[in-house]
Amino acid sequence: MPRYSCLVEYDGRPYKGFQAQDNLPTVQGSLERAILGFSGETLRITAAGRTDTGVHASGQVITFDLPKTYRPDVVRDAMNAYLIPEPIAVREAAIVDDDFSARFSATGRMYLYRILNRRAPPALEQGRVWHVKKPLDAEVMADAAQHLIGRHDFTTFRDTECQAASPIKTLDIARVKRVGEEIHLVFASRSFLHRQVRSMTGTLVEAGIGRWTAADVKAALEARDRRACGQVAPPEGLCLTHVTFEPEPDFESRSSI
Amino acid sequence: MPRYSCLVEYDGRPYKGFQAQDNLPTVQGSLERAILGFSGETLRITAAGRTDTGVHASGQVITFDLPKTYRPDVVRDAMNAYLIPEPIAVREAAIVDDDFSARFSATGRMYLYRILNRRAPPALEQGRVWHVKKPLDAEVMADAAQHLIGRHDFTTFRDTECQAASPIKTLDIARVKRVGEEIHLVFASRSFLHRQVRSMTGTLVEAGIGRWTAADVKAALEARDRRACGQVAPPEGLCLTHVTFEPEPDFESRSSI
Repeated sequence: MPRYSCLVEYDGRPYKGFQAQDNLPTVQGSLERAILGFSGETLRITAAGRTDTGVHASGQVITFDLPKTYRPDVVRDAMNAYLIPEPIAVREAAIVDDDFSARFSATGRMYLYRILNRRAPPALEQGRVWHVKKPLDAEVMADAAQHLIGRHDFTTFRDTECQAASPIKTLDIARVKRVGEEIHLVFASRSFLHRQVRSMTGTLVEAGIGRWTAADVKAALEARDRRACGQVAPPEGLCLTHVTFEPEPDFESRSSI
Repeated sequence: MPRYSCLVEYDGRPYKGFQAQDNLPTVQGSLERAILGFSGETLRITAAGRTDTGVHASGQVITFDLPKTYRPDVVRDAMNAYLIPEPIAVREAAIVDDDFSARFSATGRMYLYRILNRRAPPALEQGRVWHVKKPLDAEVMADAAQHLIGRHDFTTFRDTECQAASPIKTLDIARVKRVGEEIHLVFASRSFLHRQVRSMTGTLVEAGIGRWTAADVKAALEARDRRACGQVAPPEGLCLTHVTFEPEPDFESRSSI
């Protein structure tokens, strides 16, 4: 029973999140239907990140088992054929070890949050960015973000419905930079609490518009109280860009073109 | 009667091109409705580039006259309010001289053509890129593009329905580079013939996949014959990114945030 892993990209807009739900469009539901389409197998896939409604991914990773052995490029192309015209694409596929799990073998997850920071609303990037009209000071946001790096109790930045056993996580990267009219926030951690990235982003924006200081962000973290969180950023600016594993699945980006 | 100029961004997908047509959705039609909405004036706008169906713009420029004087930021915000929820945004507005024309005062136009060059179809960039599965050699394309630079008779790369008086144009920039999974082509000229950018792009792709040599591209140009053109690239990868003027309209990107 070979195990397959796929690198998956999707636009989260038409989906009620990644996780399968009866009678609702989900990314998982569409991927499982594509697998059923080409293989005839009804199964459940495992994913590295259960993204929320409207959240995008360029580097989601999934795993599943099939009774038959297919060449990885055949799996990729066959799934993509069944996914048309949905905004979901299998970028790469690989055969992995039986004990490899997209969820439990992941050693790191990286997210990009994009803010469009100008007066005019987004036209080309509608649904892909959070529109913040007030001018943001990226340097203040970057300074404030430094306080979030490291091992902390992130209760303040955790949704009240979060299921994680512990609110303690280690944030490895929290970078903020201006890219033209946009502000890009990059966060990396072994794993994140529910809505943690959006909660941290919304709170850093409070600092970026001058309503909070960097010290206020630090105090919010230290409060370990959900009520100390600033606003929660909307889903459309968020994208799961990268998941790391040791060892990495054999996604050979251009091998079988 | 003050004259206004606006810097406009749009996603071309829902529109039958820029130019107004009765009973069809066009970018011009939507912009003129937005002007009517806030000012009560029914008028025709002038644009720097009449983009085709499905072609995008991040830097389109328009001009129009209004009997009343408004602050430029008021024009921008009012038009954007009337444009919601369409994927058209007025990035900036300015008051310009009475003899300034978005069309006739333009001294240069720049287009970006984006190709997604991988096996998997686009998910996040659906409708924004041309999907070419075969691997493209960007260096061969860049070499071939060199032959197009300069003053030439571009009959080969001109749509048979092109209305321009002369097929002779001067191409100032023709750059090709790989950007991750994408190939970006940038073209700049004082003005372009109808479908010239898409005709040149499609022909350069013939070289990129190895079907043509750079010398074949040169011979196609020199043939001055539409039948010598390679394929014509589809509209979705094309974006009007920049129009230059001397002097430039006073678009102060972040002045009135």
